[in-house]
Amino acid sequence: MWLVGARGAVAVTSVTGLLAVRAGLTGTAGCVTELPQFSGRGLPDLADLVVGGYDVVGTPLLKRAEQLSAAGVLPGPLLAAVAGELAEVDKRVLMLPVRATAAETVEAVIGDLTAFRDRHDLDALVVVNVASTEPRPADHPAHADVTMLRGHLEVLPPSALMACAAFEAGCAFVDFTPSAGVRLPALDELARLRGVPYAGSDGKTGETLIRSVLAPMFASRNLTVRSWSGVNLLGGGDGATLTDPGANAAKTASKERVLSEVLGYRPQGSTRIDYVEELGDFKTAWDLISFAGFLGTRMRLEFTWHGCDSALAAPLVLDLTRLTAAAQRANRSGALAELAFFFKDPAGAAPAGLAEQWSALVSFVSALDAA
Amino acid sequence: MWLVGARGAVAVTSVTGLLAVRAGLTGTAGCVTELPQFSGRGLPDLADLVVGGYDVVGTPLLKRAEQLSAAGVLPGPLLAAVAGELAEVDKRVLMLPVRATAAETVEAVIGDLTAFRDRHDLDALVVVNVASTEPRPADHPAHADVTMLRGHLEVLPPSALMACAAFEAGCAFVDFTPSAGVRLPALDELARLRGVPYAGSDGKTGETLIRSVLAPMFASRNLTVRSWSGVNLLGGGDGATLTDPGANAAKTASKERVLSEVLGYRPQGSTRIDYVEELGDFKTAWDLISFAGFLGTRMRLEFTWHGCDSALAAPLVLDLTRLTAAAQRANRSGALAELAFFFKDPAGAAPAGLAEQWSALVSFVSALDAA
Amino acid sequence: MWLVGARGAVAVTSVTGLLAVRAGLTGTAGCVTELPQFSGRGLPDLADLVVGGYDVVGTPLLKRAEQLSAAGVLPGPLLAAVAGELAEVDKRVLMLPVRATAAETVEAVIGDLTAFRDRHDLDALVVVNVASTEPRPADHPAHADVTMLRGHLEVLPPSALMACAAFEAGCAFVDFTPSAGVRLPALDELARLRGVPYAGSDGKTGETLIRSVLAPMFASRNLTVRSWSGVNLLGGGDGATLTDPGANAAKTASKERVLSEVLGYRPQGSTRIDYVEELGDFKTAWDLISFAGFLGTRMRLEFTWHGCDSALAAPLVLDLTRLTAAAQRANRSGALAELAFFFKDPAGAAPAGLAEQWSALVSFVSALDAA
Amino acid sequence: MWLVGARGAVAVTSVTGLLAVRAGLTGTAGCVTELPQFSGRGLPDLADLVVGGYDVVGTPLLKRAEQLSAAGVLPGPLLAAVAGELAEVDKRVLMLPVRATAAETVEAVIGDLTAFRDRHDLDALVVVNVASTEPRPADHPAHADVTMLRGHLEVLPPSALMACAAFEAGCAFVDFTPSAGVRLPALDELARLRGVPYAGSDGKTGETLIRSVLAPMFASRNLTVRSWSGVNLLGGGDGATLTDPGANAAKTASKERVLSEVLGYRPQGSTRIDYVEELGDFKTAWDLISFAGFLGTRMRLEFTWHGCDSALAAPLVLDLTRLTAAAQRANRSGALAELAFFFKDPAGAAPAGLAEQWSALVSFVSALDAA
Repeated sequence: MWLVGARGAVAVTSVTGLLAVRAGLTGTAGCVTELPQFSGRGLPDLADLVVGGYDVVGTPLLKRAEQLSAAGVLPGPLLAAVAGELAEVDKRVLMLPVRATAAETVEAVIGDLTAFRDRHDLDALVVVNVASTEPRPADHPAHADVTMLRGHLEVLPPSALMACAAFEAGCAFVDFTPSAGVRLPALDELARLRGVPYAGSDGKTGETLIRSVLAPMFASRNLTVRSWSGVNLLGGGDGATLTDPGANAAKTASKERVLSEVLGYRPQGSTRIDYVEELGDFKTAWDLISFAGFLGTRMRLEFTWHGCDSALAAPLVLDLTRLTAAAQRANRSGALAELAFFFKDPAGAAPAGLAEQWSALVSFVSALDAA
Repeated sequence: MWLVGARGAVAVTSVTGLLAVRAGLTGTAGCVTELPQFSGRGLPDLADLVVGGYDVVGTPLLKRAEQLSAAGVLPGPLLAAVAGELAEVDKRVLMLPVRATAAETVEAVIGDLTAFRDRHDLDALVVVNVASTEPRPADHPAHADVTMLRGHLEVLPPSALMACAAFEAGCAFVDFTPSAGVRLPALDELARLRGVPYAGSDGKTGETLIRSVLAPMFASRNLTVRSWSGVNLLGGGDGATLTDPGANAAKTASKERVLSEVLGYRPQGSTRIDYVEELGDFKTAWDLISFAGFLGTRMRLEFTWHGCDSALAAPLVLDLTRLTAAAQRANRSGALAELAFFFKDPAGAAPAGLAEQWSALVSFVSALDAA
Repeated sequence: MWLVGARGAVAVTSVTGLLAVRAGLTGTAGCVTELPQFSGRGLPDLADLVVGGYDVVGTPLLKRAEQLSAAGVLPGPLLAAVAGELAEVDKRVLMLPVRATAAETVEAVIGDLTAFRDRHDLDALVVVNVASTEPRPADHPAHADVTMLRGHLEVLPPSALMACAAFEAGCAFVDFTPSAGVRLPALDELARLRGVPYAGSDGKTGETLIRSVLAPMFASRNLTVRSWSGVNLLGGGDGATLTDPGANAAKTASKERVLSEVLGYRPQGSTRIDYVEELGDFKTAWDLISFAGFLGTRMRLEFTWHGCDSALAAPLVLDLTRLTAAAQRANRSGALAELAFFFKDPAGAAPAGLAEQWSALVSFVSALDAA
Repeated sequence: MWLVGARGAVAVTSVTGLLAVRAGLTGTAGCVTELPQFSGRGLPDLADLVVGGYDVVGTPLLKRAEQLSAAGVLPGPLLAAVAGELAEVDKRVLMLPVRATAAETVEAVIGDLTAFRDRHDLDALVVVNVASTEPRPADHPAHADVTMLRGHLEVLPPSALMACAAFEAGCAFVDFTPSAGVRLPALDELARLRGVPYAGSDGKTGETLIRSVLAPMFASRNLTVRSWSGVNLLGGGDGATLTDPGANAAKTASKERVLSEVLGYRPQGSTRIDYVEELGDFKTAWDLISFAGFLGTRMRLEFTWHGCDSALAAPLVLDLTRLTAAAQRANRSGALAELAFFFKDPAGAAPAGLAEQWSALVSFVSALDAA
């Protein structure tokens, strides 16, 4: 598992949690792949994951973990117990290379990934993007054509450049953010060309998760959703990033996709994201759904979700690494639509309702196991 | 369609809505069987339903409809348009027979049902219980043995006596309430003996509907639900009935069933039903779910549902009548577990999550159609 | 009472309600001046109010009332009973004059107001602005200097032009909107010069009303409000107006004022207004308050307000007319800070908490009565 | 300050917080008497409080504090810093004496209080009841007559016996619980006889606090509250106590008092308290208020309060001690109605709205200071 943004809150929670689970200090709540449905299905063991990664800052992982503990995300007593191992992982987190040209940067990344895979003699290497959300890049024809792209790597935003390097290095890629990442058609083409799988985009950890079960409920009961409005209040690193209107727009669009896909029409109302620094890593989403039933009677549903972003995202990073690694070993390439269960904006042709996504996930693992 | 409790809010909304839909005055929002998935699948047409029923009061349907209109449940302008037809239905609503013995009462009901079926030359007759919720009856050995039961009909509460009469008359039965109804093993035996199908119990129209999609969400994400507390505030006829502690207990138990079945454990917290007269036919449910994620981090979800009981229930009564009639024509007998989608406390072996119930429903209609 | 925007939802609800109250068809819920504290205090009687006004559209009041009835704001049966009187008022609602220059427009308004006052032999005439919210005007030095202003009336937005004409005609003025209205210093000067009172701005009918009692609660308990975020979803005419970013900004600023004034600091978080057409005249506000108590412990309060804008505003329009007319009769001039109870953004030096505003209101009426 | 229930969550939070404030380790958020309005008004200094008390268990205060820290109530790093001083206080917490007769128990308590006052040379001693809520005692004529009471001390529940002993020892008494405490008329008589003041009952820390500002808002706007329903979910020691129906009834009654007093009528709806162990010291209250405005239009307000009981109550215990001690020094005796600001069920003739209670409190302190 190669984490891009390895010193961010999600990554640090993933790693600390992984070490704590291995040490038997905590359970596996939140880890989907630890459910009985996936036991004995040939997924790589949590014990076998080797963690490395990139970041643009050098703050030690332990220090970051202590900050998260002070903010109520990580239980304090755990940290002492895993501090030694955390320091080991720390050595494998490199500064993100930035070279004179995009092509040279890609080469540097390929070198780092290959070296890491060789040194640890890994079966499969999964690059996971948990860096900050980027603004949408300006359109460019090279985004749609892998041949043209190779001569114009400078048109790629950082997340896509990373995906490109991962594919060229024969690594799988998971995009946990709403950034461009692998969503450019040229990168999909490249993944298939290189025979590596990828999954994305934008981990589904709160408001959209709930929408993906409530929207099918309204649809299957033939209730007409008249408006669906939502507001998300969040602090933390991702909140700050989203004060950038471009990044905010990328995120909002992926949040509304589920509604129009499940309902077959777009209800009135909008989805807002507001940065409230003091909420820290905890986020609150409030949705109001106004709907009409028999004879046009007007009714309402509202919900409030008080979640901890890192605690929700971190186990899914582990899940996606295991699942994508298993897919790579089974020679799957291109978009893993069967992992839509984990994403707001799934790559590939995938159902939008959570229950169908769950069925697809269970079948996917069975099929990998049988293969 | 033979409605027991035909002058109650749910029944009057069903009938008024049915007439309005037939007259093209309103859409079919809330009617599940009007979704494209069920179109052309051989279900009886809404236009072909003939409505009769029982009640213990004689208030004219039009007057009841006007009361519901004043309460905001039925749109006023509709009533004038369907008043004539409502008066026609009114003639077919009889006083519920009460004879000296339970056996004589059953005979009288059989006579009414048979006469109605013959007079209107019906393919199938579905008796739908939408009367007030009863307290749970005291246990009796005859509840479990159809042979013994026939000599002890007096041990049956009214809802079960009605089911008994329906089965003996060769009619299908739908229990939309949490009353004992068809849930006694002897009645299941009787239905199978008589070769008629039945469905129940307790229409799923609000809090439990939402629980049936949220609980699977927590389960499939491996999030530990620590407590799930709920409160229901409702006025209207059913609210008043539920001030009876026995009736309240019956309802509460069926509301909590979905949680333990889906999660595999019983979270802390309880479910309350409080009668607040002034809320009328509108009900508000509030649930607080406290859950733990990765590393034990504590999080919360709360939702508030402001629904109109009659507007939610009425179209399901039409759906269940069509589906059960189709099942009877296809010679199905006994519990229709495939209709669990509609119920809080489904008869037969059925999944507890709404999405799986939906799949079962779609398959059920396809199979009937193919048969 | 001269209503500017007399065919809008608030005005039509005020007038219909006034007629219904006079006819004994409805109670006076929502009318503050009907509370026992104000009885026998010399306020003009509801029976003595004569209503006229302006609008830019010509839709008959009855038709507008029917639309409001269909939207659930006005009870249908009332309309028939007051239709005749509503038609009488209709004749006194003129098209808003628009002349070649601002000065000529002012002259035309003065003429209309004077004619109305004379024809009905009124003691006092109160012009009430219930027109749509305007964007903030660009700053201009004449806004601060009544002498300069008289030569530059074209720098005034419509609401301020109306206030100017009212003052020149010797009428009192109430601004129920967040528009510039009387808030320009030159208009305050003019009112004092002309010896007429005014009240404003921006009727307090929902989220801000609640904030004006909750913020003092946090302050008096010495609890630290860390963030206070709010979202307002509203349809109706005012909602549509607020899609204009300028108008939205005017409204949002007046909503946040109460927090910083009461708390003495500005908590994090922002206040949003979103237009959701289908909500019609009903609006929903949701606020999340995150606060810290003893030893820094973090806690939360959230509230949801489902209000009907016109039903909340309309009785206050009647209250303000009575109170301002009484002030004019008592020779008060300039800003009536004692009416802060009714406004989001009170004119004059007024306390920000509702309870203190209430005390000020009660004292004000006593003092007028004694005078 | 003599705490009855000194090892309970509220008491331990009070003491730990007091020590932390003195040591400059934390601020005074939540302490009302630290607001500028009370500065320099002659209240005893936090630095001058000497703490002792009673409990029925012997768990060391530090251990209890560690439990509260694990539950998220107290910040961990503080504990180490105050551990030494906490151990000092621990020595002054005695086992609650239980003798063969009530009269002997009272004697023992008087002895302990007198010894404590003498040893520390205290100006005033305030006994604060923060023990668990008791069921209501059965009525007895001696509850109303101090002379008869002295011969029948056995008819007093523990909280009232403690108040009796405090008064006989010349100490002031504060009842922070809804137990009978000082509410029996004979005890009020005794306090006046002995010339000591008392305050109570039932600290106002959550749902009732908010009700005490929202109910006046509805009243002053002449809005008709049709129903007001509330549910309280709480774990912790007090939650467990409230599973006793008698204790629950005592608490619920004091919660509803504010509504009928402020509104002048009793709206429909009830107030529930449910024990949910896993919520620990955090409690959630949800209220739904349904109200009617102008022309009968129906509207709603709902709020959810996520509070930490101990963090809310603890600083008020310090406030009440300071205020009551100052009252004793100023020779006040009997019920301190001016402290209604702090209580759900105030002793003496006090206004029910929070804003008026606040004004009364400010005036009270000014008057003490002037005296």
